[in-house]
Amino acid sequence: MTDEIHELIIVGGGPAGLAAGIYAARDGLDCLLLEKGMAGGQIVVTAEVANYPGFPEPLAGMELARRMEEQARAFGLRIAEEAVTGLVPEGRSILLRTAAGERRARAVIVATGASYRRIGVPGEERLAGRGVSYCGTCDGPLFAGGRVVVVGGGDTAVEEALFIARFASSVTVVHRRDSLRAGRHLRRRASAEPKIAFAWNTVVREILGGEKVQGVIAEDVASDRRREIPCDGVFVFVGTMPNTGFLEGAVALDDRGYVVTDIRMRTSVPGVFAAGDVRADSVRQVASSVGDGVTALLEAECHLAGLEG
Amino acid sequence: MTDEIHELIIVGGGPAGLAAGIYAARDGLDCLLLEKGMAGGQIVVTAEVANYPGFPEPLAGMELARRMEEQARAFGLRIAEEAVTGLVPEGRSILLRTAAGERRARAVIVATGASYRRIGVPGEERLAGRGVSYCGTCDGPLFAGGRVVVVGGGDTAVEEALFIARFASSVTVVHRRDSLRAGRHLRRRASAEPKIAFAWNTVVREILGGEKVQGVIAEDVASDRRREIPCDGVFVFVGTMPNTGFLEGAVALDDRGYVVTDIRMRTSVPGVFAAGDVRADSVRQVASSVGDGVTALLEAECHLAGLEG
Repeated sequence: MTDEIHELIIVGGGPAGLAAGIYAARDGLDCLLLEKGMAGGQIVVTAEVANYPGFPEPLAGMELARRMEEQARAFGLRIAEEAVTGLVPEGRSILLRTAAGERRARAVIVATGASYRRIGVPGEERLAGRGVSYCGTCDGPLFAGGRVVVVGGGDTAVEEALFIARFASSVTVVHRRDSLRAGRHLRRRASAEPKIAFAWNTVVREILGGEKVQGVIAEDVASDRRREIPCDGVFVFVGTMPNTGFLEGAVALDDRGYVVTDIRMRTSVPGVFAAGDVRADSVRQVASSVGDGVTALLEAECHLAGLEG
Repeated sequence: MTDEIHELIIVGGGPAGLAAGIYAARDGLDCLLLEKGMAGGQIVVTAEVANYPGFPEPLAGMELARRMEEQARAFGLRIAEEAVTGLVPEGRSILLRTAAGERRARAVIVATGASYRRIGVPGEERLAGRGVSYCGTCDGPLFAGGRVVVVGGGDTAVEEALFIARFASSVTVVHRRDSLRAGRHLRRRASAEPKIAFAWNTVVREILGGEKVQGVIAEDVASDRRREIPCDGVFVFVGTMPNTGFLEGAVALDDRGYVVTDIRMRTSVPGVFAAGDVRADSVRQVASSVGDGVTALLEAECHLAGLEG
């Protein structure tokens, strides 16, 4: 493993990484994709993808991920299950520290995506998996007939609240502002759903429960008044954090930790590109991630051609 | 038509415009897509799309376009056949001059793509459609058993040469440089195809023929020596020109006429966005175009929210 220098290593197997991998494999690059878990990224936990262009009928996120992986493998892409823990630029190549040792490549595409953000209140960590969840698609059906609190007001929060409302008897959306940030289509659907109620200008201060969630302490942001909302489940959708810990000190990140790129997906390090949810300014859609992945790959090929010539 | 102000008008119905339209219609925007001809853009003349993520089996460009259009229409997108001839910023709205009169919108997404570039030699215009073609996928089968000259050395030229070689008895690729610009995968395939020969460091100076193409005058760029290459067809793949004539003087273009955008697809005019092949720095793939379209649409929604709030 140590002496070989690949032409390209793609870090992350979500839509951005797989899109880059499809092109890399088809172009015959010596390319390896490293994925710490299961290929597919966040879409594997998305119940239904309706807006990825080319599919008039909605399909499960898992199925879309499977199709992309199959396409990449059919062109010959090699995928290894291996977490990357560090990146060191070495002039004409890039060193990656991984769970299995070290790997080197002439070019690297970072497509590690983003993870769910926590609200950081008492009870949240202790009750995770005991009523506290970050994925409605995964855990919504567990709360059939139950009362659920959803924290957040963006697209994801509202999409997931609508999904959870298929199962739960009631969904209370707790949002710190007086209106939703979610798009109009989602706002309308949520307002029309009788199972969904809203607690505006409200934050969750604590999650209550012993073995299982029993409620939350909610606080009005204007009056500071607190009240208890009894519930069986708490779903937290307050944004994401980029998976960029392994890049710190090596590649320029913005103040929230996302990788800064130019319009060609080039980072501050020559030969290192970023694509998908991990980069600053991404709109975090499957379509934009595959676009990023393809752009990053074609720019990586230019970089390789420059090294050769 | 004159007094109504749409929330959004999308100009162009290729992958970028349709992707924006899918999102716009699903979000319930008051949106109209204007397309001067048939929806689908350049992919409708692409025989086979193998690298659009999500399709492990290659599909015809025409079929992919049809699927995107069906998806957009299923969400309720309105599409009108109407050429746009001018754009005038008017503060809080944008005026579009069209073949049918005038239209106004709060936001505009320009997704008009690019067209084939001509080489500009004697005989080219006169013999267009009489042996001179810009689309191998469309016209390749017309030259079954014939001798064909292909002009160009990029991805498109080589892809099309390979396609034409399925039908023609011989294909001579005339290229002004001493090596192909096309990607490695394509270079390898072309080198392995016995029907394809290369004329390096060579340009076409004239296309010969009366009623039909009979040959070309080729010139060696080093020695200036000329020779005739007899042939039945000439396919020209020397790049594309952006369809931005209607934007001149209104929106910032680069020196080749492509629309300049930032990473969020914003142009120099607030409320006007650009997506796909028409923008500077696009890598001109279906995947990157749909990514652009979705990004432009979500930025347009931010712009609309800003006008409201």
